[in-house]
Amino acid sequence: MSGQVRCSVADGLAWVTLAHAGKFNAMSRAMWRQLKAVFTALQADTGLRGAVVAGEGGHFCAGGDIAEYPDFRFDEAQLRDFHENDVWGGLQAMLACDLPLIAQIEGNCMGAGVEIASCCDIRVAGQGARFGAPIARLGFPMAPREAQLVAREAGVATAREMLLEAAVVAADEMRARGFLNAVLPDAEVAAHVQTRAQRMARLAPQAARLNKQTLRALCAGNEPMDAVVAGAYRYADSAEHHEGIDAFLAKRQPVF
Amino acid sequence: MSGQVRCSVADGLAWVTLAHAGKFNAMSRAMWRQLKAVFTALQADTGLRGAVVAGEGGHFCAGGDIAEYPDFRFDEAQLRDFHENDVWGGLQAMLACDLPLIAQIEGNCMGAGVEIASCCDIRVAGQGARFGAPIARLGFPMAPREAQLVAREAGVATAREMLLEAAVVAADEMRARGFLNAVLPDAEVAAHVQTRAQRMARLAPQAARLNKQTLRALCAGNEPMDAVVAGAYRYADSAEHHEGIDAFLAKRQPVF
Amino acid sequence: MSGQVRCSVADGLAWVTLAHAGKFNAMSRAMWRQLKAVFTALQADTGLRGAVVAGEGGHFCAGGDIAEYPDFRFDEAQLRDFHENDVWGGLQAMLACDLPLIAQIEGNCMGAGVEIASCCDIRVAGQGARFGAPIARLGFPMAPREAQLVAREAGVATAREMLLEAAVVAADEMRARGFLNAVLPDAEVAAHVQTRAQRMARLAPQAARLNKQTLRALCAGNEPMDAVVAGAYRYADSAEHHEGIDAFLAKRQPVF
Repeated sequence: MSGQVRCSVADGLAWVTLAHAGKFNAMSRAMWRQLKAVFTALQADTGLRGAVVAGEGGHFCAGGDIAEYPDFRFDEAQLRDFHENDVWGGLQAMLACDLPLIAQIEGNCMGAGVEIASCCDIRVAGQGARFGAPIARLGFPMAPREAQLVAREAGVATAREMLLEAAVVAADEMRARGFLNAVLPDAEVAAHVQTRAQRMARLAPQAARLNKQTLRALCAGNEPMDAVVAGAYRYADSAEHHEGIDAFLAKRQPVF
Repeated sequence: MSGQVRCSVADGLAWVTLAHAGKFNAMSRAMWRQLKAVFTALQADTGLRGAVVAGEGGHFCAGGDIAEYPDFRFDEAQLRDFHENDVWGGLQAMLACDLPLIAQIEGNCMGAGVEIASCCDIRVAGQGARFGAPIARLGFPMAPREAQLVAREAGVATAREMLLEAAVVAADEMRARGFLNAVLPDAEVAAHVQTRAQRMARLAPQAARLNKQTLRALCAGNEPMDAVVAGAYRYADSAEHHEGIDAFLAKRQPVF
Repeated sequence: MSGQVRCSVADGLAWVTLAHAGKFNAMSRAMWRQLKAVFTALQADTGLRGAVVAGEGGHFCAGGDIAEYPDFRFDEAQLRDFHENDVWGGLQAMLACDLPLIAQIEGNCMGAGVEIASCCDIRVAGQGARFGAPIARLGFPMAPREAQLVAREAGVATAREMLLEAAVVAADEMRARGFLNAVLPDAEVAAHVQTRAQRMARLAPQAARLNKQTLRALCAGNEPMDAVVAGAYRYADSAEHHEGIDAFLAKRQPVF
């Protein structure tokens, strides 16, 4: 058994768990494919309002499962297939998901871990979390789509430090650099994320999905603004829009 | 009377005031149109050297004027007209203005307030200022052009936190995230901005306008660099260019 | 003698020195051309693993050599030639270099200094270093390609503050804004950079060059991702790739 990506749903929130015992949840090829399947299913579930991604056993994700690498990395076509289909398939499914995503980051968050966290909208870490992509010790560069993702979310200066110096960066520093929204004592991270997710789930769900679609289009940057704007006001007469404004004017809490 | 955008001029500086009593200067449709008219006029005034944007009564701007929303927001065409013409008309006039703009931010800076501040080049806030765009409580998403503006100036991570969590962020935190150039005790903000604006007004005015044109083209990103560069050196033989270099070499203060 | 850009090589590392005595290493036209020649040569040297750029005599670089400016700046064609060929020629050669570059920044880092530092991957400064581009006092704007570079690396908010307010920013503040990777007591900068460069030089050199090529393509943003990806996996069967993964699995240090 080479690791698992598990998912459970409760109260409109999905809890996605990276689990690979004894390897700090390093991502095997099977796990990348499961990641894609999980997020494709979450995206299709219209009853959900958000998702949390966490690792099992006090770590987020230590990177790829290097034990598997000799099987496929030394052949160009297989290497391409791994990065473009397995890895990017999983990350792309996360990025294509309209649900607000929270990363709950404890312990090691390296390589694939940074990439998975970079697909989340909100990132919360414990003080003991450590971030990096020290593949310069493994003799290979970051694949371009993954590098673009990490550079965008962590900043190109941090991406360079991680890739060119194999730097490992502490949680407080990653917060100062804008990658993390909050850093907490390790023992408080899970409860903080739970509260944060539940609060998020009470906000307008259609607005959240529309905001994610817009921000995704803006980040991708390959769609003209006129195309992004074209369908942007279809929510005008929706129940959620009415409820939000009616409740505000009636000075009551909205129920979304 | 549903609020006003006022403007006065003194010593080469324009002072733009958002004023909507009892509503923390929330932007009504009329105010968005006035904002456009004010900045269109400022852009045409070749004698000016900069502008300061502030709110009246200890607040910058609390957002849109929600009392007006039932009149037009629930119809797609009217909603589009509001965002694309009224709101973006005002913001676009600010962005198209070649004058250096300073935002003086006290108290509430929410939604429209963050957007207006995002059109300024320099942002100074009081310690008590609060920033956010909690429209997820009102049941609607941020319009795409506005989201692009806020994500560019406040960073996409902060835009996500504001939009997906309805987060309200303190001034010190917004400074740490790079949105603010300075944070001061509330009582000192106005004087600090005045000094800063006057100092700015003594610098080379043509260079400021050219820098703004260049930075605007770079931020928009839809013009090839060769086109941006094409007219970039026409200032070569200008009086201002001569004066700056002559003064430096003569070890005297330049007079622009 | 109007300044020099010197280069020496030792143990796989190049040490590039900006030297213009009595002018805090201000860049003359001759120095810009030397900068281009130096980095063109470094790029062609396949035995190198990185380079450090520093200034002589306790300063990085104070800007351009203003004493030369009356000779050419007041004629549009000559001004264009200076910025597009001399300055951008030097900066472009740095940006086109596949070696990881470390900027060792002490004392004045102004105008051209900020631009040269912006071409480096890792930036380390002494606590006494000061950053700015106060050309608004000299009556001219920043050239577009240079402004794009500085805005990308220092952030557009810092670029605006430097250009529109002639602001001078301290090292600690530039670190908070993400421009610097580390700030040290002035007396410790050189030793810190030496250690850092040597550590970097022991990492996988081919991976570093590939990472630089990818990050350069992403920053330029004018190549479709499919084109960036096209050749991205050719390293699959390389000795370096084998060595990195073999060493990891054998629990030994890789030798690159």
